[in-house]
Amino acid sequence: MERTEDHVLGLIERVKSKPLRFRDEQITMAHGAGGKATLTLIEGLLAPAFGIDELADAAAVGELAVTTDSFVVRPIRFPGGSIGELAVNGTVNDLAVSGARPLALTLSLVLEEGLSADELRAEVEAIARAAEAAGVRIVAGDTKVVERGRCDSMYVTTTGIGRLDPRAQLSPSSLRPGDRILVSGPVGEHGTAIMLARGEFELDAAIESDTKPLWPAVDALLDAAGDSLRCVRDATRGGVASVLNELARASGVAIVVREAQVPVHPAVAGACEILGIDPMYVANEGTLVAFAAPEAADDALAALRSVAGCEAAAEIGEVKTEPPGMVLVETGFGGRRVMDMLVGDPLPRIC
Amino acid sequence: MERTEDHVLGLIERVKSKPLRFRDEQITMAHGAGGKATLTLIEGLLAPAFGIDELADAAAVGELAVTTDSFVVRPIRFPGGSIGELAVNGTVNDLAVSGARPLALTLSLVLEEGLSADELRAEVEAIARAAEAAGVRIVAGDTKVVERGRCDSMYVTTTGIGRLDPRAQLSPSSLRPGDRILVSGPVGEHGTAIMLARGEFELDAAIESDTKPLWPAVDALLDAAGDSLRCVRDATRGGVASVLNELARASGVAIVVREAQVPVHPAVAGACEILGIDPMYVANEGTLVAFAAPEAADDALAALRSVAGCEAAAEIGEVKTEPPGMVLVETGFGGRRVMDMLVGDPLPRIC
Repeated sequence: MERTEDHVLGLIERVKSKPLRFRDEQITMAHGAGGKATLTLIEGLLAPAFGIDELADAAAVGELAVTTDSFVVRPIRFPGGSIGELAVNGTVNDLAVSGARPLALTLSLVLEEGLSADELRAEVEAIARAAEAAGVRIVAGDTKVVERGRCDSMYVTTTGIGRLDPRAQLSPSSLRPGDRILVSGPVGEHGTAIMLARGEFELDAAIESDTKPLWPAVDALLDAAGDSLRCVRDATRGGVASVLNELARASGVAIVVREAQVPVHPAVAGACEILGIDPMYVANEGTLVAFAAPEAADDALAALRSVAGCEAAAEIGEVKTEPPGMVLVETGFGGRRVMDMLVGDPLPRIC
Repeated sequence: MERTEDHVLGLIERVKSKPLRFRDEQITMAHGAGGKATLTLIEGLLAPAFGIDELADAAAVGELAVTTDSFVVRPIRFPGGSIGELAVNGTVNDLAVSGARPLALTLSLVLEEGLSADELRAEVEAIARAAEAAGVRIVAGDTKVVERGRCDSMYVTTTGIGRLDPRAQLSPSSLRPGDRILVSGPVGEHGTAIMLARGEFELDAAIESDTKPLWPAVDALLDAAGDSLRCVRDATRGGVASVLNELARASGVAIVVREAQVPVHPAVAGACEILGIDPMYVANEGTLVAFAAPEAADDALAALRSVAGCEAAAEIGEVKTEPPGMVLVETGFGGRRVMDMLVGDPLPRIC
């Protein structure tokens, strides 16, 4: 992921001028990882076919916001949560970061033949509890069953409907030089918890998924910063690094992250170092990145820290002018490197 | 599926008084078939967990109707359609039969690693074409990828949002004795086309899926019958027989079907006879069942026949008082038999 700045400058023209094209001959795990291949699939195939312009987390239908997500996480239960809880929080969070108060969810289950009733019951209960905690109703649903082996216990698709909050003037293309970048908590916990839960590594650390609903955090940010809040994203697949790259591209700005200021739980930092992964690329399921105009940034950060579960919120960087479309990291030693888009899929099926 | 009337009478008290309970130890293909096991899963587990009362095709959120469906049809292409087209029509039809004009869809794809880009592109194009034909926009989406073998090419989940039509006063519990029962076209084509497309039977017949959007048919029915239109259903999984059983239960009425009046394409009738299946239990993807008050039934039928694709619409039976919760068939020979809820899954993964 490290590149020289010469290489960076060579990329700028491409980044600014050309949308990504989908040229692959077949689907790989990387197309589901939330990085460059996913963006290629979306920008190069799906968005043009459906006439969708802006790659936001939710779309407006009248005064409502709508978003959808499928969940295929493996294993379905892990420290700190389960697929059902994730399916609720992931979707209400896409609404929240779009500035919409979550109202209702639909739920569609693809179940594997042979799934035990107890496992299904546990997830149905997890969904009901998470929906209650997030203040949303489950209003419609569907269930399909496929033969043993044609699914992995269950896949869950939720669609969220929320009401756009009049305080919110959020857009991925609204970032301006000088804007401050906040994260609502330590990064990388969800993806690391999943990797460890699979038991493929001889590594035992007490790391739990950060899965939680984020509307209270967005609500607090909107109260504190109003229309000085430029954009909010939940840093799921591809982690904080992917969010920053998407927004740098969408706004045509540079983003500089001060590595030393990014909160990372020591156990996550240790596990990621052993696994050879940068926690900035690891998925979160209850952590947002917010961009605020400079005059509102301190109030926004204070508001965020007052929300339960966001006490460790931090300012981690700033929006700059050059080089547009790029994300740079200032290391603790004063060096700079490019934090590029995620390539490949180091952490498959984490959500 | 045949039962004596003695047996019927013995069932009545149970049907009227007790909701179905989910007692199975594991999920079987039957839970996805749209018959009794599916109803058990919904009534016995999902609906109580989420506090959902009425088993309608779509739920109201303010003035909007919302519905969701996952599609796992195998093979993904078949005579007359494909999974992408089905995913659009199936969901807009759930809105339509709820009396809501379809406005927007969300789309979530679970893709199998190794799926060819050409197959994906073909389905994306099919989705775009079907959405245009149905007059809906695709407003949001998601893509996940799972390892080879953990899916079957692709599973597609669509959620539909529509605007409730003020003319519509539809409810599954509104059926009254004397109401007439209409179908919008020949029954059993979709499921039969899928079974033949699998090539598991040495049977070659020119049968195409009936997949198509049904809002024009519902619109015509509402124009002709207004609030004399009691309820409309698209007869998907479990076919017309399952719709009739659900509504007989929901309204506490009996339903009598005159078998000789049910339109069935001769090739479908022939194929079903060889396969040993009753076409009344076979899925349709562009055929509705409508219940109209007696005074409005003739106008409703005439209106339905004027809609392109519904020229073969027919009146097939009537709502009665006794025995409540049951569906009876009058055969061409003057006999009567019970048309019970579907048990098991004779036609897996047809949508």
